Amino acid sequence: MADKPKITYVRGRGLAEVSRLIFAVQDVETTEEHITTNEEFQKIKATGKLMFNQLPLIEIDGLCLIESQAQGNYLGHKYNMLGKTDLERGRVQMLFAGSNSFNSVSGPFWFFMPAEARADAKKSAIEKGKTRYLPVFEKVLTENGTGFLVGSEATIADCALFNILSCMKEMPEYNNILDNFPQCKAFVDTFSAIPGVKKYLESPRRFPPPDDAYAKEVRAALY
Amino acid sequence: MADKPKITYVRGRGLAEVSRLIFAVQDVETTEEHITTNEEFQKIKATGKLMFNQLPLIEIDGLCLIESQAQGNYLGHKYNMLGKTDLERGRVQMLFAGSNSFNSVSGPFWFFMPAEARADAKKSAIEKGKTRYLPVFEKVLTENGTGFLVGSEATIADCALFNILSCMKEMPEYNNILDNFPQCKAFVDTFSAIPGVKKYLESPRRFPPPDDAYAKEVRAALY
Repeated sequence: MADKPKITYVRGRGLAEVSRLIFAVQDVETTEEHITTNEEFQKIKATGKLMFNQLPLIEIDGLCLIESQAQGNYLGHKYNMLGKTDLERGRVQMLFAGSNSFNSVSGPFWFFMPAEARADAKKSAIEKGKTRYLPVFEKVLTENGTGFLVGSEATIADCALFNILSCMKEMPEYNNILDNFPQCKAFVDTFSAIPGVKKYLESPRRFPPPDDAYAKEVRAALY
Repeated sequence: MADKPKITYVRGRGLAEVSRLIFAVQDVETTEEHITTNEEFQKIKATGKLMFNQLPLIEIDGLCLIESQAQGNYLGHKYNMLGKTDLERGRVQMLFAGSNSFNSVSGPFWFFMPAEARADAKKSAIEKGKTRYLPVFEKVLTENGTGFLVGSEATIADCALFNILSCMKEMPEYNNILDNFPQCKAFVDTFSAIPGVKKYLESPRRFPPPDDAYAKEVRAALY
């Protein structure tokens, strides 16, 4: 019997979360190893498992997979979550890339910034989310009309969108931003209700959104 | 008969080049429309074809595809350039992502920077290329031993690697950096000799590496 997929990463959602959500949609059990110190990071680098010395690492099917977009595409192929037709495949890839950009532009990255730059970074992140990304996803969800971004089942694009939208819903810093985007708000509930996802979100395996302590640990371990 | 794929972008390699190289490997003819002013960019945005208001755009199979990694994956699927086994698929995705990072970290992006920051940016780009990326690709090419990164045919990862390595070979700023990485140097020749690629590289469709005039035009058109 094949081993469970193993994720090696820091103790947070970060760049591993989209893959964790793909596993959750499929209700696939995984194991995790958490890097909390720089010594541990050096040790895992020395194994040669990290092609570009990056985390997260997913060990699966005898492969050491790094780089989050590569992981999303590999798992998407394995679990048939890349769309069913050429048209769907193209849209899934665009919306996967767009969701990842949305997350990197509007996600709570300000925890990793010096105190004096945070207020501006937070304001700009929220503003770009409101004007540049949320209107596009609101439109796509409205037009598709199934509760998911493409077709009628969750794809890797939905996992990446849920990653950022669930953060926006949970964190008071975002000021209920989703109230103005009802389809996006409903999407969070629809995705959360997928049985494997529900189980995952209610488990201790789902990390809380980032905070200062998390940012401090990650900086110490990986930088 | 299906129309030729159409690429809409600025007059340079930039984010369209990996897709152009995929088409070249397949010897697929494309048409191009070039955006040289901000008015033209606003006009294409107004058509609604650009999901996240980004270029390049590829119109293919009735789809308006934006985002370069999405384009790479879509075309890779269409032309069977994503690897043939699970192991190959995983490696192609990692090396595609790694080549794109390599390009964004070590590519000639300094043309887009203010004059006073250029020297440092150039130095850092070259240093990171030498220490962080080239040794990995040198090792992968040595171990695979076919002249390509994965398996024995060009995949999207090879197209993305050629994009940055050909720049390094052509631009005097890189000081013959590839001389210390013989497998990478040989790869540029192997890839250039693919019949469709050879035809493309010798045609007026292949843009030269970026220069000041190009950077000025792009800034005026897209920013």
